[in-house]
Amino acid sequence: MPLSRLPSPPYYAVIFASVRTDKDDDGYAKMAVEMSRLAAQQEGYLGQDSTERDNEGMGITVSYWRDEAAILAWKKQVDHTAARNMGREKWYKSYTLRVARVERAYDFDRPEQA
Amino acid sequence: MPLSRLPSPPYYAVIFASVRTDKDDDGYAKMAVEMSRLAAQQEGYLGQDSTERDNEGMGITVSYWRDEAAILAWKKQVDHTAARNMGREKWYKSYTLRVARVERAYDFDRPEQA
Repeated sequence: MPLSRLPSPPYYAVIFASVRTDKDDDGYAKMAVEMSRLAAQQEGYLGQDSTERDNEGMGITVSYWRDEAAILAWKKQVDHTAARNMGREKWYKSYTLRVARVERAYDFDRPEQA
Repeated sequence: MPLSRLPSPPYYAVIFASVRTDKDDDGYAKMAVEMSRLAAQQEGYLGQDSTERDNEGMGITVSYWRDEAAILAWKKQVDHTAARNMGREKWYKSYTLRVARVERAYDFDRPEQA
């Protein structure tokens, strides 16, 4: 997936770092795809950067939002709330979630080789 | 690596999402370890969360800092500046770097099974 290119700051980031339980997938992959799809439909969603989960079960997803109101609305969205509850019940060993105001941003793209 | 546990907000996050070039490692892994070690020695460094690079060469590292002054000092650190130049010259196909003020944070740890 290419990196998100966004309008100029300020905007908000939700930094979600998580470690999966050792259990089987148990619906996790399907939920993750569905939540990404659903987030992208929300008012104020700007984009997200996400890595595949590494060998230690750790992954980081950063989603970007126009403002805090958009983040709060997404937090309260019904299907998302159900997925969060399932996450705590069975999918995640641990996670941290941080809400941050993006103040500066820089991009780099390698020039095409001549 | 366990997830970073930090003091209460506010503090700052540097969100670095990058895609590697298809080239050989060419010193990249060694540099990455050295930069993590060096960052951890800086005044105002609080911690970092980082995933292994996935199959598409993408990785996300989020480092946490006490304040913007600490981030600026790290940006100017000589060895780090050299590594950033090398990154643009040969290691990265593209990257985005965002500086954000963390305003709220939540942790979850699965209770030990009885």
